[in-house]
Amino acid sequence: MVPTWDSTIRHELDLVEEEMRDSVLSEQQLLTEISMYVIGSGGKRIRPAVTILTFKACGGTDIPKVVKIASAFEMIHAATLIHDDINDQGDYRRGRVAAYKRFGTQRALIAGDFLFVKSFKMGGTFDERIVGMVADACTAIAESEMLQSLYEGDADTPISEYLKIIEGKTAKPIEAGARVGAYLAKADEGRIDQMGGYGLAIGMAFQVIDDILDIVGNDRSLGKPRGVDFVDGKPTLPLLYAMADSEYGPEIRRLFLKPERTHQDAEEALAMVVRTKAIELCKRTALDYTIKAKAIISQVPDSEFKSSMIRLADALVERNN
Amino acid sequence: MVPTWDSTIRHELDLVEEEMRDSVLSEQQLLTEISMYVIGSGGKRIRPAVTILTFKACGGTDIPKVVKIASAFEMIHAATLIHDDINDQGDYRRGRVAAYKRFGTQRALIAGDFLFVKSFKMGGTFDERIVGMVADACTAIAESEMLQSLYEGDADTPISEYLKIIEGKTAKPIEAGARVGAYLAKADEGRIDQMGGYGLAIGMAFQVIDDILDIVGNDRSLGKPRGVDFVDGKPTLPLLYAMADSEYGPEIRRLFLKPERTHQDAEEALAMVVRTKAIELCKRTALDYTIKAKAIISQVPDSEFKSSMIRLADALVERNN
Repeated sequence: MVPTWDSTIRHELDLVEEEMRDSVLSEQQLLTEISMYVIGSGGKRIRPAVTILTFKACGGTDIPKVVKIASAFEMIHAATLIHDDINDQGDYRRGRVAAYKRFGTQRALIAGDFLFVKSFKMGGTFDERIVGMVADACTAIAESEMLQSLYEGDADTPISEYLKIIEGKTAKPIEAGARVGAYLAKADEGRIDQMGGYGLAIGMAFQVIDDILDIVGNDRSLGKPRGVDFVDGKPTLPLLYAMADSEYGPEIRRLFLKPERTHQDAEEALAMVVRTKAIELCKRTALDYTIKAKAIISQVPDSEFKSSMIRLADALVERNN
Repeated sequence: MVPTWDSTIRHELDLVEEEMRDSVLSEQQLLTEISMYVIGSGGKRIRPAVTILTFKACGGTDIPKVVKIASAFEMIHAATLIHDDINDQGDYRRGRVAAYKRFGTQRALIAGDFLFVKSFKMGGTFDERIVGMVADACTAIAESEMLQSLYEGDADTPISEYLKIIEGKTAKPIEAGARVGAYLAKADEGRIDQMGGYGLAIGMAFQVIDDILDIVGNDRSLGKPRGVDFVDGKPTLPLLYAMADSEYGPEIRRLFLKPERTHQDAEEALAMVVRTKAIELCKRTALDYTIKAKAIISQVPDSEFKSSMIRLADALVERNN
């Protein structure tokens, strides 16, 4: 049987779950409840996994330390999901009603702040360089979300800007996690850069695939209806490619440029998108990033963790949710 | 001429303004713009002032360090103001349209997160104890906001719960700032506790006065219409006292318990509140805290900064905005 990508770090990932559960305990039970509602709703744990894998691939041994910072990255991710859903008015997340819908916007917003604070408290116990890496990753998220808001509903978004957005919101935080793992394992600067490069590349691949799945995915496995990006006016890579198609592009574009896009508009547009070369081109883009990630990782000494990192890179582009 | 409370630390407070301006620079100009819109709209700078005053009163000399952490406290405050206004749907803040009204909820929410991150980055460069104090203050804010949401529209809120709410959202953060100032100045534990006690007491007084001003204040000097707390269903101390009044209480209570309270309801209720003993009782409560703060501070060696702290304690209860 082929081992799964996470088979080498099952124990550490379990510790991450424990660490997160402990960190969100609060005398205000609702804060704990909302936090756990989001954290406990599954999720792939890519972020903590990358930190733990790079740490172990670099020979790191202080497990409690890496578990703590890995948990901080996942909790930051959870915080951004809560706030994102408020901003995008997304109804579902990971097969559940979004937190703000279930608990109210006010309480969800506070819980997001709470998760941020708790993550930073965990990160703040590390040295200045780690604090800087964590904070810069969070800054990148905020900046790219702002950039994304500037291109909302813009059918002429340059692909370079799309790439900048997904780099900031997804790839840089994963890169930071990879760098932190290597740094904590006392890897030299060259190795830290390699691990960072791996994280950045799989992060880009991951987000491109996410954007593809919003078009071709299955509602049930996605845990939310597809077409959400279209409805939200997010100019994702597959949509940008599809709108450039000579046959279907103009009609997709017309639907995209509507002041308010319905789910029916989305379904109509998506049916056209899949007739263009957009999905294929995007898959190739994602695969390019994966190849890049694996090329970088090939320079790292062999280990079971390195193998896991390669399997993870592959799994991220082969997934259907 | 009597010196104002901030006359001894004008230079340091100017440095705080510079530090904050530099910290919110971003390649996403809108993040900088929204941040500066909120930070630059005045505000009393109580939080950084308390940190700087306790630092100097304890003999601290490393100005850049205290300016940095004092700025972090003010930026955390700015972040919470942005998110609070989203939650309370407040129209005005410090005489200006609230950030979320001006820039949109989505962008304001992101800017609030951005300010949190930048503050934590600044705080994260300090040692673990300071990180803990800053993070615990932020946790207290989130917890008390959650508690506040549980008592929204509850005319029977116990006064002990009201006190717990204002302690968490206002007094504990100011206490943390005072403790951090003393700790940075290498004060001993006893002195840190005194400074913390001072911060906690003036923080309580400050918030009680704020709640009074929402009833008797003048729209122009408040920078927002009064009665907002009533409309939001916040059971503040003056409202709780007034609803206990045998003559006017029942009618104020009836208005407070309406599912949706208008500004007209508020004006009607407020006109009755001022006829009760509520305002007087609340002023006495605030004054009690001020007396407590001054009693604590009397144990500290004399200095111009100690004098400023006493003047600050007085100014906070004598203010009309």
